[in-house]
Amino acid sequence: MMEIRRCRKMTSKPFGVNLTLLPALQPPDYPAYARVIIEEGIRIVETAGNNPAPVIKQLKAADPPIIILHKCTTVRHALSAIKLGVDFLSIDGMECAGHVGETDITNFILLSRARQELNVPFIASGGFADGQGLAAALSLGAEGINMGTRFMCTIEAPIHQNIKESIVKAQETDTELVLRRWKNTSRMFSNKVARDAIKIERESPTGKFEEVAPYVSGKRGREVFLNGDPEHGVWTAGQVIGLIHDIPSCADLISRIEREALDTINKAKSLYVEELPESDMEGKPIQDSSANPTGEYGAVGSKVNNPQSEVWGIGKSKL
Amino acid sequence: MMEIRRCRKMTSKPFGVNLTLLPALQPPDYPAYARVIIEEGIRIVETAGNNPAPVIKQLKAADPPIIILHKCTTVRHALSAIKLGVDFLSIDGMECAGHVGETDITNFILLSRARQELNVPFIASGGFADGQGLAAALSLGAEGINMGTRFMCTIEAPIHQNIKESIVKAQETDTELVLRRWKNTSRMFSNKVARDAIKIERESPTGKFEEVAPYVSGKRGREVFLNGDPEHGVWTAGQVIGLIHDIPSCADLISRIEREALDTINKAKSLYVEELPESDMEGKPIQDSSANPTGEYGAVGSKVNNPQSEVWGIGKSKL
Repeated sequence: MMEIRRCRKMTSKPFGVNLTLLPALQPPDYPAYARVIIEEGIRIVETAGNNPAPVIKQLKAADPPIIILHKCTTVRHALSAIKLGVDFLSIDGMECAGHVGETDITNFILLSRARQELNVPFIASGGFADGQGLAAALSLGAEGINMGTRFMCTIEAPIHQNIKESIVKAQETDTELVLRRWKNTSRMFSNKVARDAIKIERESPTGKFEEVAPYVSGKRGREVFLNGDPEHGVWTAGQVIGLIHDIPSCADLISRIEREALDTINKAKSLYVEELPESDMEGKPIQDSSANPTGEYGAVGSKVNNPQSEVWGIGKSKL
Repeated sequence: MMEIRRCRKMTSKPFGVNLTLLPALQPPDYPAYARVIIEEGIRIVETAGNNPAPVIKQLKAADPPIIILHKCTTVRHALSAIKLGVDFLSIDGMECAGHVGETDITNFILLSRARQELNVPFIASGGFADGQGLAAALSLGAEGINMGTRFMCTIEAPIHQNIKESIVKAQETDTELVLRRWKNTSRMFSNKVARDAIKIERESPTGKFEEVAPYVSGKRGREVFLNGDPEHGVWTAGQVIGLIHDIPSCADLISRIEREALDTINKAKSLYVEELPESDMEGKPIQDSSANPTGEYGAVGSKVNNPQSEVWGIGKSKL
């Protein structure tokens, strides 16, 4: 409630609340969270995690019903969430930060599967930092992108400058998957704590969670963002850290992404050149590209002799 | 040499040869392979695998030098290959079939990293089956796509019909990563042999390759394609099997992909609507979108009042 009221003071614009339902020894009182969200007049909630049915039912029973964006890492869970009445989905590939799920399907596959199967709109999560990524997500069928790690690396993000700089310095290979053994796989920034946790996870003969618990403490993880010591605990980061090279303002970041996406789409569009009508050539039909006597390569879909055509590309590529 | 001559009989078009350099107890005579490739007048070679330097040197010493496409799963290896003189690269994300490498970077990240770092052109491998994927790959900076699993599922592919139908029936979750323990991780179709291999790999206290060797026999894997029994041995398949739903001819597949890619790019382009010049509105400049008195959401990059603008999207999205 405090955070909702704090956010309301900071902007006159609408905002959403995330409610992630995680397995825990002592689960938080999620119904109470949902009640506060409704009472505070929030209109959009992002749900994620296990067994969202009761919370979705509660939020949908509000008057008017709350708009629900559900985040998931499999098409199967997305289809279940649609049956529960969610309004749109956030499709989260295995490149993402935090909970990646247990199937390790990448966004190139997962977004296309979502396009093929889902009858509600979806946005793309996990792996996005720039306009080229936005253009690619739109190509695969998403309505937009969701960025977590990238926004951590902005001037406005309320985390320690050291952590922002750690992200800028990091490469795409500097993340680890921890807690797979307990089917709660999370992508974390690669530091000694995370690597020690994985070692215990792999080598412990008992497989008792208690052995790894001190290493994956959420409390110490949250302290990282305040004290600026990237080695203090485990903290989430996506593979996208490899694509992040600066710490802009949110406004600069968004307008850069917009410009990049537009340039990207225009460039892709420019690759396609209309085929000339066959009669424009020599007045006789040419059946297939094997009738092309001089082209070194047969162009994809080429029906006319075009010495500039290439092996790959669409239509008559200018590449 | 036999295969090169067989291929030459089947087409008058140029074709390339793949030379994958794998760790093996008794390595094949790769220099002899390269010699035959040169003698047969092949002009394009795709190299992949470990320690390609000697073979690349040999192929580049041919007169004229052979054009080399090198396939790799990390930016680091791509940069090394460029130093060795390769002409272009095939960037292979962890969703791919067969050798995925050991870093598990997905194509959304890896292609963007390639765009940021490489000064030679690259195509995208791993996870491609349709025109939406091609459009996304072009967006991320690739010059085109490379398809393996998708072409296995065409009328012309010289493999048993049962295997093609197994791919059509399979979901994106029906692959397994085997041989990670020996740093030779391969993505295989999920059958009992592959799952048994993984069980041994995980549970063997010795970690001796001999224990798993009978399960990952390449000979039995190749027999699968002839005898049509998907359970006979391990055989490679990418996560993209989840996107494959039919067995078209190659010509139909290619023209479908071309049409889908063009439609996809046109649709992405149509999402962007030019901002109206500010003077067209009320003759006075509007500093930022918070000055927008009526829009329920602030549009990304919006400078003018547009009640149809939305939270996500580029420019003034029509979504």
